[in-house]
Amino acid sequence: MNQKKPVPNPDDPRLSREVEGVDELGHPKSIKVIEERPLTIYLNSQEIVTAMTIGDYPEYLALGFLLNQGMLKATDQVTAIDYDEELEVAVVRTTSPTNVEEKLEKKTRTSGCAVGTVFGDMMAGLEGLELEDTPVNTSSFYALSYKVNHTPSLYMETGAIHGTALCQGEEVLAYMEDVGRHNAVDKIAGWMHMNGVSAADKVLYTTGRLTSEMVIKTALMGIPTLISRSGFTAWGVDIARQVGLTLIGRMRGKKFTCLSGQHRLIYDQDLNLVVDESDKMQRKGARLG
Amino acid sequence: MNQKKPVPNPDDPRLSREVEGVDELGHPKSIKVIEERPLTIYLNSQEIVTAMTIGDYPEYLALGFLLNQGMLKATDQVTAIDYDEELEVAVVRTTSPTNVEEKLEKKTRTSGCAVGTVFGDMMAGLEGLELEDTPVNTSSFYALSYKVNHTPSLYMETGAIHGTALCQGEEVLAYMEDVGRHNAVDKIAGWMHMNGVSAADKVLYTTGRLTSEMVIKTALMGIPTLISRSGFTAWGVDIARQVGLTLIGRMRGKKFTCLSGQHRLIYDQDLNLVVDESDKMQRKGARLG
Repeated sequence: MNQKKPVPNPDDPRLSREVEGVDELGHPKSIKVIEERPLTIYLNSQEIVTAMTIGDYPEYLALGFLLNQGMLKATDQVTAIDYDEELEVAVVRTTSPTNVEEKLEKKTRTSGCAVGTVFGDMMAGLEGLELEDTPVNTSSFYALSYKVNHTPSLYMETGAIHGTALCQGEEVLAYMEDVGRHNAVDKIAGWMHMNGVSAADKVLYTTGRLTSEMVIKTALMGIPTLISRSGFTAWGVDIARQVGLTLIGRMRGKKFTCLSGQHRLIYDQDLNLVVDESDKMQRKGARLG
Repeated sequence: MNQKKPVPNPDDPRLSREVEGVDELGHPKSIKVIEERPLTIYLNSQEIVTAMTIGDYPEYLALGFLLNQGMLKATDQVTAIDYDEELEVAVVRTTSPTNVEEKLEKKTRTSGCAVGTVFGDMMAGLEGLELEDTPVNTSSFYALSYKVNHTPSLYMETGAIHGTALCQGEEVLAYMEDVGRHNAVDKIAGWMHMNGVSAADKVLYTTGRLTSEMVIKTALMGIPTLISRSGFTAWGVDIARQVGLTLIGRMRGKKFTCLSGQHRLIYDQDLNLVVDESDKMQRKGARLG
């Protein structure tokens, strides 16, 4: 229940470890690799899912996952989030049983696949949703991109990890990393909920691809702008257009591509002032992710 | 039930589409983006999971997923795989109900989370598993890396997609792509099973990260060597060492790092002959993925 601004902590010894091997010549080589561990998330007494995570901010991850899956409504009263490090379990508790628990109860008596309902629920959450029509300055994209890529991070230490930053104007409010790009977004959602942070004037920046699930999560969080260094999927674009999300991809150096919600962009950046990414500065893993 | 060598088909109109937007100057820009659609996989009458996929080779994906999750044993008799394009459903049918269906039946009466059992089952499948101690030439890594990165692919057309290639010596036997890196591997597993392809002398090449799940799948498939352009997770390395998998990561240009099974490597490549990747040749998205 950390109230301070969360940023990556590359020095946390629980999050990475030095591993010995060899290089292409057979010479000993030791590199730092990211940890990956299971976290089983419960909603009250109902086991929901086991996520693979680096293991920081388990409470935010559990809460954000349930919110983003539509399993927990913003109006549900969360009374506690209990995390047991040894058992690798996080339990989100509410005052009264949620709608989802009843649904799962029913579902398990029929087809037996509780998690099969999840995607349908997420899509249902989008019905009638229209995001705030907040104008957004392209100059902030360049500023945020620079900040995120120059913040000390586990990515820089170990690679093989994704980052997501919640931003307002040119400020990064929270920056989460995880082996699963969805986990990083879920942690942001959990942090926002626990700190009562509003969404309509925010921008979400991710290093991951703009898949349907990433777009759905952003929309359900109420954030009207999503930016990525990586590419798009067609369905992700379709959903963004449906809910009025401004979707920016392939953002590197001077360049970006906007495939949805372009009417909200204010082109206030003098592109002559933007440094094109040199190879050394380039965040590796730009278009995939 | 395609018997010919499967490779990406960037010209398949079902797999990508042209989408219009704007660039960083607000000028119209149109790019090709990858499709993403759900595929719900059934094992007989039991709904198992809904995967997000580009949609090619649904039969291989369904079969490979069930095999790689340990839900279907190599000895189970598969009588048919029915794919309904309109319903986006693939049903794998066996002569008699599988062990898994009984287990899920039981599971749903208790905690209700069918898919929650999956990871445990995958880990259980590793117990006592020891991969074939097949020596492998580092020269083949460079040849395969070159071939995969120079084969026409959806990646080159659209980005935002992962590739996995099944290789033998310097030959690529099958090359699958998907928005989910695990789907690409599952399709390979399905193709191998349906074509009776042995595993002990093969190498798997992936553009994705070497996470625990990727390592587990490769091990369960019986393939003793896994190569990636991307990075490692610590748990992925732990599992690889446990089962004797040769694990090569960060393979780009002349360089690679081997963190498990290095005793099987034969360093037969003259590195002076390997071209270091220029920026233009470099597959974007190298370390993440």
